[in-house]
This record gives sequence, C-alpha cells and structure tokens, in this order.
Amino acid sequence: MANAPKANAVVGQSGGPTGVINASLVGIIEEAQKHPEIRTVFGAIHAVAGMVKDDFIDLTKLSPETLEVVAASPSSAIGTSRDKPDAEYCAKILEVFKKRDIRYFFYIGGNDSANTAHILNKMADQISYDIRAFHIPKTVDNDLLVTDHCPGFGTAAKFEACALTGDDLDNRALPGVKIDVIMGRHAGFLTAATVLGKTRDDDGPHLVYVPERPIPMDKFLADVDAVLKKLNRCVVTVSEGICDGDGQTWAKKLARQAETDAHGNIQLSGTGALADFFAAQVKAALGVKRVRADTFGYLQRSFPGIQSPVDVEEARRCGREAVRLAMTEDNGSVAIRRIADGPDYAVELFRTELSSVAEKTKPMPDEFINADGNGITEAFVKYAMPLVGDLPRTEYLGGRPRV
Amino acid sequence: MANAPKANAVVGQSGGPTGVINASLVGIIEEAQKHPEIRTVFGAIHAVAGMVKDDFIDLTKLSPETLEVVAASPSSAIGTSRDKPDAEYCAKILEVFKKRDIRYFFYIGGNDSANTAHILNKMADQISYDIRAFHIPKTVDNDLLVTDHCPGFGTAAKFEACALTGDDLDNRALPGVKIDVIMGRHAGFLTAATVLGKTRDDDGPHLVYVPERPIPMDKFLADVDAVLKKLNRCVVTVSEGICDGDGQTWAKKLARQAETDAHGNIQLSGTGALADFFAAQVKAALGVKRVRADTFGYLQRSFPGIQSPVDVEEARRCGREAVRLAMTEDNGSVAIRRIADGPDYAVELFRTELSSVAEKTKPMPDEFINADGNGITEAFVKYAMPLVGDLPRTEYLGGRPRV
Repeated sequence: MANAPKANAVVGQSGGPTGVINASLVGIIEEAQKHPEIRTVFGAIHAVAGMVKDDFIDLTKLSPETLEVVAASPSSAIGTSRDKPDAEYCAKILEVFKKRDIRYFFYIGGNDSANTAHILNKMADQISYDIRAFHIPKTVDNDLLVTDHCPGFGTAAKFEACALTGDDLDNRALPGVKIDVIMGRHAGFLTAATVLGKTRDDDGPHLVYVPERPIPMDKFLADVDAVLKKLNRCVVTVSEGICDGDGQTWAKKLARQAETDAHGNIQLSGTGALADFFAAQVKAALGVKRVRADTFGYLQRSFPGIQSPVDVEEARRCGREAVRLAMTEDNGSVAIRRIADGPDYAVELFRTELSSVAEKTKPMPDEFINADGNGITEAFVKYAMPLVGDLPRTEYLGGRPRV
Repeated sequence: MANAPKANAVVGQSGGPTGVINASLVGIIEEAQKHPEIRTVFGAIHAVAGMVKDDFIDLTKLSPETLEVVAASPSSAIGTSRDKPDAEYCAKILEVFKKRDIRYFFYIGGNDSANTAHILNKMADQISYDIRAFHIPKTVDNDLLVTDHCPGFGTAAKFEACALTGDDLDNRALPGVKIDVIMGRHAGFLTAATVLGKTRDDDGPHLVYVPERPIPMDKFLADVDAVLKKLNRCVVTVSEGICDGDGQTWAKKLARQAETDAHGNIQLSGTGALADFFAAQVKAALGVKRVRADTFGYLQRSFPGIQSPVDVEEARRCGREAVRLAMTEDNGSVAIRRIADGPDYAVELFRTELSSVAEKTKPMPDEFINADGNGITEAFVKYAMPLVGDLPRTEYLGGRPRV
C-alpha cells in the first residue's frame, strides 16, 4: 500500500436523513484535521449531485462551537440525494475530483452509498486515478450487513420507544384500538423498537407486525380481537412494508386499488393510507367504536433534541475511524462489532469490504420475532436496549386497587 | 361564605390527554394534603364515568417519588372520558358523592369540563348538598376564554416547534413540498406554534393555515407555487380544522366524498386523509415530483420527555390554586394572568366564574394571523415563546458560501 497522498477530501451524506448522520460528518471533519495528508475537506451539497455539479462548501473552516451544534442536529447538514450514479455519472464526478485534487472520498449512507463508493473506487482504478473511498454506515432501518447495528438506528429506535410509551398511556386513558404505522419497508427493526419502552405487563404495543412475516387480514383481525377481549383496548404497531399472505405488500395493494378509483384527485399512495385502511378493517370487522390510526412519518428520523447518547457517540466514532482507515487502506466500509453487552456495553470498529455491504440488506433475525409473527422477543430487547439509552419513566395510576 | 367543610375530595381528568395534565393532578394532591379540611382525595377512574360507577382510587397514599413520576408523565394518569353528563347522570354522581361524603370536586379539563363542574354545582345546590366545584384548565388547543393561556398548550407547542425544526431540516436535505397536518379543529394556536423554532430567514414552515381563515384550494396552490418559485422547496402546516372558501371544513368534504365511494372498505375519515388529499392536489396541479404529507396525530399530546418547564410548573400551580380557592370559595375556574413578559415572564393565578369558561371557545386573535391568511405574526411569537421554554439549536450548512 502506497503512502497516503497529500490531497483534498470530499464528504457526502446520502439517502434518508437520520438523527445522527451529522455526528458522523463532524467525526470525519475533526479527524481529517489531525492528518496533514488531508488538506481541505469539501462538503458535497446534496451528495453525488453536488459532486457532479462541482457544488461544494469548505468544511475545514467551521468553528468547534458550530461543529457541536451540527453534530446535535438531525437531518443531513450538507443535503442529501437519492441519485444512483451510473458509469457516465461517476466519470463526471471523477473529472471534478481531478480538477480539485480530491483523493479521499467519504460517503455516509446505506447500502446504496456503499455501492457508490465501490463503483467510484473501481472506476478510479481503471483510469489510474488513486482515490481512497470509504463508506460510513447510516440508516434508521438498521438493515446493513456485517455491522452489528447502524448509526442512526439507536436514535430512531429511541423515538419509537418514547412514542409508544406515550401512545400507550393515551390509549389507557381513552381506550380503543390504536394502530401506528412505522418506517421500514424491508426490515422490521424500527417497528420492533416500539416495544422498548414497555415496563408493565399490559403495556402496549400489544401486537407488532414486521415485513419479515406476512400478515393476512383475517389473522390480523383475530389477533386484535383476542387482545381486545383480554384488555378492552389494543395498541398495534405495523411496519409500512408489511405484506399480505401472498407476499405482496399491503401498501402496493392499496395503491393499485386507488388507481381504479374514478375520483382521480384522491390518492392512496400518501403516507396515511395504510394506517387508515387497517383502522377501517378493524372498525368494520370487529365493530369497535374507537379506532385511531397514526403514521409517524418523517418525525421518526428528524425530531430534534432526543438523540441517543450511545448512537451519537458511535456515529461520530465511525466518521473518525473512516479517516484513520484512509491513511493506510485503499477503501472499505466502517463496521461495528459488539464486544460487551448489558451495563458494560462496548463496541469496537473495524474495516469491512465495500462489496460486502453494497446493495444487499439484512432482515431481522428469526430469533427477534415471536412464533406467532405478531410480537417481538426478549432477544431483540437485549440487542437494542443498549443502543437507545435511558427512556422516560412514566406512571399510570388507573390500574391501582380500587377503594 | 361558610367555613370549608371537613370532607373528602374527588379529582377527575376530562377530555383529551395532554403532556402536563398529570402535573395539575399532582398539584391538587399535594395541596390537599396541607389542608386538614380535606380528608381523602379520591381519583375518579375515567373522569365522570368513574364517578357515576363509583370507581375510585385513593390518591392520598402515593409516595412523593411516585407523584414526581406522575407529574412528568404524559396522558391522563387516572384515565379520562368524553362523556357529557346530563341531569340524570349528574344526579347519580351526586348520590355517589353523598355516599362517600365527597364535598370537593376538582375537574381538570377544557370548556366542557368547566360546564360539567358548573352543572354539578348547580344541581348540588338544588338538593342542598354543599359541594365546592372547581375547574382546572387543560387543553393543547389553548382555546379557553378568560385565561391568558392553557396548561398543556406550552408542551404541545414545544412539540410542534421541535417537529417543524426537524422537518424543515429534512426538507432542506431532500427538497420538495412537505405538508403537515396539526391538531386543532377550531383554534389555530397549535398550528401557529409550528413557527416557533424558526431562526433563519428561509426556515419553514413557509405557509401556515389555521381554522380561523378559510383557504380555497386555488389560493392554497398559488401560495405553494410562489414559495416553490422562490426557495425551490416548501414546508406547509395546516390545522385539521381548516375550511374551504365556503366555510365548510375540508375534512368534512372529504368524508362526504368518501361515502359515495363504492369500494366500501376504504375510508377517508381516518387521520391521514386530509394530508394526503392536500398532497395529491399539489402533485396534480403544480407537477411537483416530491410531495410528502404527515399527520402528527396523537404524538402531539402524548410524546413523553419533552415537557415545557414553564408549562409543567404552571399546570401544577393551577392544581394547587384550585385547592386553595376551595377553602374560601364555593366554585370557580382557575385562570392565568400574564403579569410580565419577555425574559421576566411571570404569571399570577386568579379565580373566574365557571360560566365564563363553560362551553365557549376562543379563536386566535386577528393580530396573530397575517393579512394574507397564510402565516403567523410576530405578535403570536411574542405571546407563545415564553410558554415553550428552550428549543433545540440546530445547524444547516447547505446555505454556506460555495468554494
């Protein structure tokens, strides 16, 4: 391996924002400033879109105070993009890199971002332009391979745990059926996290449905009915990506149904449709008077002021680690290995191949889902609790002995 | 006025839960224990429903530690109800009161709750059963008369301010049109609070629509288009109770449209429908590619861990004040008067007539809404800022000078 070149670096933030992607950005900036090999750190505005358009800011001139506020801010501070660069797109990016003497490429994102780093690295090799390409993991969905978990998940999981703690208290106060639709098209980790705030035996959510298990409507309704008979109320969380028994997502089925609707101006592809559909089913089939449905939407990834301390620290470490790796390696993706659990929870970071993370996604392990496919196991709670940090303590008095 | 009787007290929490209604409950409990006139404080499970069914817990035996956790918990710790008692219902309640020697009635709620206290007090007079009936204000909507503001509003307003701060950062990172539907059927205070986190000139929400101003669809679309042309993105907040130009709510219009829909199993009265409808209009009329809509739902009133310190303290003081007033007065509603503003913000509490609060609601004052009916004025910001406390600081770097 050749010595690290003395050159400029670029950072991009790709895909959906998270609560701690900016902590990774700050980790990269602060570590880069320790290495004289890296001159200027350019921030690409809107990720690859900024790289191809030569649209950059200088990240090396931000004050330490500003960096701390950035690290605490949700969303992607230099903008993001959902572009998937093809060969032509990458060739243009490399032209810009050459012009600016950029030889360090740090890309914070999910599996698509790892793939972009991989492709760009290979194309640079082909034209004998030496770049060092690193991927820093980020996703609220927690669906990346190799790494124990993804920065961004802990904070989003904390949001879900808090949200359901409050929502369950609300449902105790005004009983009925409550259905909450949670982010996660392919992996159920975030929906599973809705159980993390449970402390009492009868706390909700009482039913949890993830994309890894199909849920035919009759089974769903029977599950809700059984909880209602027992508790006279029922709180349900549902991944946006859940499927019918035939393996097709309910969201797609609804969208198709809506297309045949003559009104034209009523779309069912909006974010509230899936929740409303499930609520309507419960009302019609079970005759429950009070049925409410919420779709948590973008609040799940962007609500400020509630970062998980562990998550924000790990996100920042991952950014720093990528820069350190770039001093000795040609490319790679930063991954997290859990080396201790429980109160001694600790992790170490390591390099994995870009190709081992690129494109593929990881579903929830079977051991995290109960046998009925409608609940989450203790194994998941043990896995996820260290990632979210302390949760608010709450009291409900309505279950106390009567006088 | 006769001396305060030595007797038992009852507390009920009515209507929709809030983030600080339990602080008022704790204020009542702790103050009652200072007055030997009050023996036991009964908590009515599910408000008047518990009173009529003789379903109570003893609130005098909770530890100080438990009370602190209760005060910090969202939702209604002893359950709530939307029952509106008629004469027969009230007569049954008074039977239970007699049986239990309850002569202090503390009811935490909105205008309906003040009315319940008023009716119950009058009916007790008619049968010469002396009760002291007090209403403690509570509502996220902030729509009660007489009082400067309502406990519960500050915390919900803080949620909205935080939510839009994060949502606006998300929209900067991935530009497009974002529409958020906010609680508030008749009063726009909570929707107005979505502006409280704005610190930069181009921060969203860029358009704010409240129930006090009708918004025909063509005007709405023209407004969004104008913001898009200027900023290339647009964040909009909309009260759930906004009306079309003819004064009818958009929500009702959608519900009627849905009834004529032959599919049957698709309802548009669910919580996501209004947001999805507005998003569909923007997509169709303006040809915007990325349009997203969220309906914040119950998170707005139940999210734990983010109480406004001012709000929780005032809620608790209101509870204490009700008990103190009951030592010398027959009935009343606790109200808040603002006696200093800005950094010296301070309030004092006073008694107002139950009838002055009962049933009626307060819309936003004209001076809080801009001339165009699509934004919120500085006068509102000045009014509301002291109620929410500190908000998270955030940074977005994408507007910095290019290099």
